[in-house]
Amino acid sequence: MRPRFKLWIEKDGQLVFSDWRAQLLRTIDESGSLSEAASRLGVHYRIAWEKLHRMEQRLGVKLVEGHSGGAGGGGANLTDAGRELLAKYERLTASLDEEVARRFAALFGEEG
Amino acid sequence: MRPRFKLWIEKDGQLVFSDWRAQLLRTIDESGSLSEAASRLGVHYRIAWEKLHRMEQRLGVKLVEGHSGGAGGGGANLTDAGRELLAKYERLTASLDEEVARRFAALFGEEG
Repeated sequence: MRPRFKLWIEKDGQLVFSDWRAQLLRTIDESGSLSEAASRLGVHYRIAWEKLHRMEQRLGVKLVEGHSGGAGGGGANLTDAGRELLAKYERLTASLDEEVARRFAALFGEEG
Repeated sequence: MRPRFKLWIEKDGQLVFSDWRAQLLRTIDESGSLSEAASRLGVHYRIAWEKLHRMEQRLGVKLVEGHSGGAGGGGANLTDAGRELLAKYERLTASLDEEVARRFAALFGEEG
């Protein structure tokens, strides 16, 4: 047996952050572009834009900033707030991965 | 912000236990009847029976035992294994609820 879990964050009862949203920020950070991130995650640009926009609205903070110009057109970068949110969420999920496995093994006598 | 957390248990990549399944066992324990438990949980008897049967098959252990006869017809009770699985799962989820809130507060500086 193996424990599995899913974490997400709500604000005022509404979803504001999740594994998918973390992956979206991570991919924007890696690719420097929202449209490239959407493409890598297999969603339409509009969907990625809306999820990002709704997160920012609900959290009341800008997570990604756009910059335009250059040969490849506009790009996007995480803001400091976006980078911090992503880093904290990643630390939380990583530490919980370990903790869930540890507590499961202690109770069920199996490796998690 | 508030962290939310959902746990489940897999065996060989297949779901074997979850909050809903824990609630099914708990309700069978309280009501002494699989059909009464199904009714309280708002599912057809057949659905409850199948979920239970599949759990038992995948875990390779009997979780509920039926007994027949009496004025009200047959009833159902948790086996020792069923009771133990439920108790361990409840301890795991309760302790993790606390741990998630604690770690979230430590990282995000808010009450979970």
